[in-house]
Amino acid sequence: MEPIFYSKLDIQIRFNDLDAYRHVNNNSYFSYYDLGKDEYFREVFPPDFRLQNVVPIIANIKADFLSPILYGDKIVMETRCSRLGNKSFTLQQRAVNVSTRSVVCESETVMVFFDITTQKSAPIPPEYRKNIIAFERGQVD
Amino acid sequence: MEPIFYSKLDIQIRFNDLDAYRHVNNNSYFSYYDLGKDEYFREVFPPDFRLQNVVPIIANIKADFLSPILYGDKIVMETRCSRLGNKSFTLQQRAVNVSTRSVVCESETVMVFFDITTQKSAPIPPEYRKNIIAFERGQVD
Amino acid sequence: MEPIFYSKLDIQIRFNDLDAYRHVNNNSYFSYYDLGKDEYFREVFPPDFRLQNVVPIIANIKADFLSPILYGDKIVMETRCSRLGNKSFTLQQRAVNVSTRSVVCESETVMVFFDITTQKSAPIPPEYRKNIIAFERGQVD
Amino acid sequence: MEPIFYSKLDIQIRFNDLDAYRHVNNNSYFSYYDLGKDEYFREVFPPDFRLQNVVPIIANIKADFLSPILYGDKIVMETRCSRLGNKSFTLQQRAVNVSTRSVVCESETVMVFFDITTQKSAPIPPEYRKNIIAFERGQVD
Repeated sequence: MEPIFYSKLDIQIRFNDLDAYRHVNNNSYFSYYDLGKDEYFREVFPPDFRLQNVVPIIANIKADFLSPILYGDKIVMETRCSRLGNKSFTLQQRAVNVSTRSVVCESETVMVFFDITTQKSAPIPPEYRKNIIAFERGQVD
Repeated sequence: MEPIFYSKLDIQIRFNDLDAYRHVNNNSYFSYYDLGKDEYFREVFPPDFRLQNVVPIIANIKADFLSPILYGDKIVMETRCSRLGNKSFTLQQRAVNVSTRSVVCESETVMVFFDITTQKSAPIPPEYRKNIIAFERGQVD
Repeated sequence: MEPIFYSKLDIQIRFNDLDAYRHVNNNSYFSYYDLGKDEYFREVFPPDFRLQNVVPIIANIKADFLSPILYGDKIVMETRCSRLGNKSFTLQQRAVNVSTRSVVCESETVMVFFDITTQKSAPIPPEYRKNIIAFERGQVD
Repeated sequence: MEPIFYSKLDIQIRFNDLDAYRHVNNNSYFSYYDLGKDEYFREVFPPDFRLQNVVPIIANIKADFLSPILYGDKIVMETRCSRLGNKSFTLQQRAVNVSTRSVVCESETVMVFFDITTQKSAPIPPEYRKNIIAFERGQVD
């Protein structure tokens, strides 16, 4: 069944996100994904999570570019946690063009918790895990 | 056997490529991959390929972030064509830290040739194909 | 007397706007100014003004960096036309931190209308001029 | 008499520096100015100057956009210190198109030394001052 995305964020497109093709440049999509991730993190992580000793970092990302984004398009970034492991989790994201209702791009990002002091990966903090499961109404692999 | 990357480009890192973690931000990696792609295209495509009716566009990209890039690191982006299809091809890329000799990130990008007039995918122009095979010494799937 | 800024836009700060000082990087300020300019242009120019033969281009910009912008700050960009010439006009902009009410940066941008066909500067289109004066309640030099 | 720029840096233009006008976007000019500044700082400041307690920050910048930069242009950023005060100094910069020999943009940046611990401006460290004067062959106001 269709996964449900509870986290949605309107993206503020910048003119310099475009490139010479008059489309949003591929690079800018990743700053849109980041905006969606941060919106998601605001929901499930403490406000100062970036200042903790154990922080989530991106291990890898897969992104599909389905259709161009034009200047003036209204874009909503949708983000959900699709997998929750011991030290890593997967964020599934997609950007929807509000007027056409079509998904213009989608991605999967594997994030790993990293301990800055030991410089090693670390388990996901229990309350983070609890918050993610609650936010996703338990619909997490 | 290890693939050979014949296309190599020194990356000029910008201070604003960094983020608050004092590392190059994940987004900036994609502009480095783009620099490597353009260097590759200079080798195998005509100088004005972007102005043609049939242009290569990115369909999807998979990127692994292996270790952080710090300001002042000397980074070389290596690019090769690992697969050549009828309408699409795959570019394999990796960034090497010159002093540590380690691969700090790697990616695979599927690019599709797109006809701007028909707004449909199109076969790879024959001379482009010829140039890619020649540049890769025939080592292309 | 204090000038009145009728055009105000909330800025969506991106994590990769920050640099290694954990502040918004100086470069990003200019993309915020651009967002404010575009919001202003939406008020006074036709929606397709960028596709016209005569377009406004930036001749020069002066920017003062008054205090740092941190991630999570709520920033509003305020924009007004402070001078309306024959072929050029000046936009005055400032970003206000919503919680501290302080101006964190301000700028003046001289824009010139440029005719793409003749590749020369051109008079400001009369209806653009009319709209600017109306939007500014006549308070333009 | 014409000032002499002893610091010169080739700029690596990125495709996503362009915007929908097929020119380098105004924002990207400032990342080019930054590259020139860093090159200059490498000449006159210690390698770890950014990690010191007293760091130079940008107070304001004035930039003139003289002619567009196109993709493929060879651009050299030239930087000099035009004024050396007690707590602040001014960097004069210009980008030269190598093939046309023309200056495509120029700027003046006032930088202030800032003490991170006291959060106040601070005198320019004596050896920094010495190095700047030496690098400029004494040609500093």
